[in-house]
Amino acid sequence: MQKEREILALNAFDRSRASAMGAELGEAVQRRLRSFGKASVLFYEEPIRMERAEGVYMFDLEGRRYLDLYNNVPSVGHSHPRVVEAVRRQIGVLNIHTRYLNDVVDVYAERLLATFPSEIDHLVLTCTGSEANDLALRIAKVATGRAGFIVTETAYHGNTAAVTDVSPSSRPGQPLPSHVRVVPAPEMFRNPVGDPGRRFADGVAAAITDLERSGVGFAGLLVDTIFSSDGVYSDPAGFLAPTVKLVHERKGLFIADEVQPGFGRTGTAMWGFARHGVVPDIVTMGKPMGNGFPMGGVALRAPLLDCFAAEVKYFNTFGGNPVAAAAGLAVLDVINDEGLLQNAREVGRHLMDGLREIGNRHIQIGDVRGAGLFIGLELVTDRDSREPAPELAITLINRLRQRGFLIGAAGPFGSTLKIRPPLCFGADHADMFITACDEELRAISAA
Amino acid sequence: MQKEREILALNAFDRSRASAMGAELGEAVQRRLRSFGKASVLFYEEPIRMERAEGVYMFDLEGRRYLDLYNNVPSVGHSHPRVVEAVRRQIGVLNIHTRYLNDVVDVYAERLLATFPSEIDHLVLTCTGSEANDLALRIAKVATGRAGFIVTETAYHGNTAAVTDVSPSSRPGQPLPSHVRVVPAPEMFRNPVGDPGRRFADGVAAAITDLERSGVGFAGLLVDTIFSSDGVYSDPAGFLAPTVKLVHERKGLFIADEVQPGFGRTGTAMWGFARHGVVPDIVTMGKPMGNGFPMGGVALRAPLLDCFAAEVKYFNTFGGNPVAAAAGLAVLDVINDEGLLQNAREVGRHLMDGLREIGNRHIQIGDVRGAGLFIGLELVTDRDSREPAPELAITLINRLRQRGFLIGAAGPFGSTLKIRPPLCFGADHADMFITACDEELRAISAA
Repeated sequence: MQKEREILALNAFDRSRASAMGAELGEAVQRRLRSFGKASVLFYEEPIRMERAEGVYMFDLEGRRYLDLYNNVPSVGHSHPRVVEAVRRQIGVLNIHTRYLNDVVDVYAERLLATFPSEIDHLVLTCTGSEANDLALRIAKVATGRAGFIVTETAYHGNTAAVTDVSPSSRPGQPLPSHVRVVPAPEMFRNPVGDPGRRFADGVAAAITDLERSGVGFAGLLVDTIFSSDGVYSDPAGFLAPTVKLVHERKGLFIADEVQPGFGRTGTAMWGFARHGVVPDIVTMGKPMGNGFPMGGVALRAPLLDCFAAEVKYFNTFGGNPVAAAAGLAVLDVINDEGLLQNAREVGRHLMDGLREIGNRHIQIGDVRGAGLFIGLELVTDRDSREPAPELAITLINRLRQRGFLIGAAGPFGSTLKIRPPLCFGADHADMFITACDEELRAISAA
Repeated sequence: MQKEREILALNAFDRSRASAMGAELGEAVQRRLRSFGKASVLFYEEPIRMERAEGVYMFDLEGRRYLDLYNNVPSVGHSHPRVVEAVRRQIGVLNIHTRYLNDVVDVYAERLLATFPSEIDHLVLTCTGSEANDLALRIAKVATGRAGFIVTETAYHGNTAAVTDVSPSSRPGQPLPSHVRVVPAPEMFRNPVGDPGRRFADGVAAAITDLERSGVGFAGLLVDTIFSSDGVYSDPAGFLAPTVKLVHERKGLFIADEVQPGFGRTGTAMWGFARHGVVPDIVTMGKPMGNGFPMGGVALRAPLLDCFAAEVKYFNTFGGNPVAAAAGLAVLDVINDEGLLQNAREVGRHLMDGLREIGNRHIQIGDVRGAGLFIGLELVTDRDSREPAPELAITLINRLRQRGFLIGAAGPFGSTLKIRPPLCFGADHADMFITACDEELRAISAA
């Protein structure tokens, strides 16, 4: 298993090359490093000085345009006028915590909860997906009285101490904490034999038994329902069902991390878990929730929240502030009014078809998979060996950047292109990207 | 030691009384509870439906005006036009993570770091104070190779799992985690004998020895530099110096939690630690940083961040987004251009003088203490016994609310009024509050 550190490095600017850049860019990079030091992460061999963004496009300081297939936070489109307007209006009126009443927060909560199965009827608002996952783990521990969690081998769930414990991809070279077990993702490219849902459930069953034997006990299974950091696994729809049934039989909770697949990205429903016909106990949300306004949340079954609230007084100062609620409400409106689910479904299919078609000409395209506008393109040395090609990924990512396309990589080998453009991405944009991939792969092969 | 749960309850709406309210308010409360359940916290016996806010005032749905002495997040004033304008402008242009370059983030980082002693030269931006404290603990653990932390008995540092472990006030009735030790706050009201700085250092020394003997080892001391949740302790200036010297001698880190005292509130400097002539290793920031725009941060000595970055890849999706940076920059500008430090110092002194003066007529005012516009007013049954009067606090808070003043309580007994108005609070506003306290205390005594 390749580590998050290396995955990030795949598309990260290399500090030692700073002197090779143009003077102005070099100075901008040095300036960044002076304040943010070695913790600073910049994308690309040649970082971009980004200036503005609109819809599916971003523009750098020189006015150069980039088609965005990477950024999943501004999910309804960069600088979307309705979200911008909602924030602009509310921030001039009231921006305060939830210990006073204010209608916009309640309207938002009702609208958001209405997108869930009826069992999921309560909400806690936080500021980030990390805070949401951190809280979800605490709620599951209190509700079950047990401490053990199961996650996938290359999982990433956020950046707090507790969430990093359940994010193996963030803990390069470190042994797993004693309360965490990992299971292989439901990989269907390199391990196509048998039923992936059954295989995944068997892995989880063994991990539950191990947690129980160790005395830690089983609190819950936490998965990103499209397995983004594991390399994007969405099919066959329904494969999570046997696992969720098992988790409940073994008295644990199923926590669906919807920070990445949520808010319509998978094209078939608002939430990734819906694809699998399951109902989670706890759902966590973040990134696209406010189209960039910092907000996150935990939606859950009422008895779980009651149980937690009886033991713990949780309060989140910025969580549920009316500006966030206004932004979140605008996001829900835009998803609905602009038909973004349908668009994600249709354009996603068009994009996958096109990438598969050029795959006929490029043996380095090992697989194209995904749902809606969350697509993984697997790069390999050749299709028969299925040998991961992370160096090709980095070359292609940087060539596409020079050509005006923003894209990144994921997966245990860093060889899966993560394709997740704004949900207003059109078929014409898809075609531009397909052509660019085709030509760049041809140029790389010729080089 | 009274628990956070009870402290919060002191000023919290009691769900069982919902039916006693007017129909419209009752329905608004029920609506809130339907989505947010038992985890929802509302202030006051009769919660407020807040509609808008401006400067030092908030306005409810009926247009009723409240003078705000409670809310320390909108620190330069509610809906401050310059902060509002900065957010409005930037959110229409670009709102993205820090893996691209964008000048506003770098300008903000430089301006913010310039407010610190030169040793503190690096920055990590987060979304909340909780995330900042969570990260600070992780950094201290990596840098020292040890896991033990010392905090005060009624400390509150935030809401993540790891930060709740070091927030005894959030863990009612639970034993301390094995890696945490508590020390008494430098209390000078009920325990006026001797040098509080020496006493505090002695407590910390004993806790360090205990952590070392237990094998956990000493990583750091984490304190809110004005000891807000412990009851507001600011004097004598410099009392933290012997403790910080000791912490360094014992190879631990001093982490200053500036989430509450920071950004000029104490009136003498931007940071609460400056009052004590000490230089922290790590400083955490939150609440007032963006005047309500969700943002937090960790400022620290470069070698600590280098050490952490070598082990861990930390990334915060929303942290340092250009809208937050624009808001933060406007906050720094306003503090400077409107002379808010001087105002906090002068109006704070005027307010403390006035409260002490009415204290001559009210034996329930046991103490008035603080720095700048962070003031604690200690309510007692009488000044000689110094018996805490939490019931009086709750009565006074609710009467002041009915009269149009917003205020809350803190401290181990919930008997300390926390007075922390926006920093643009004027002497005339102070006089209004002093008169209201005087009259309400008289009315309570007469009742």
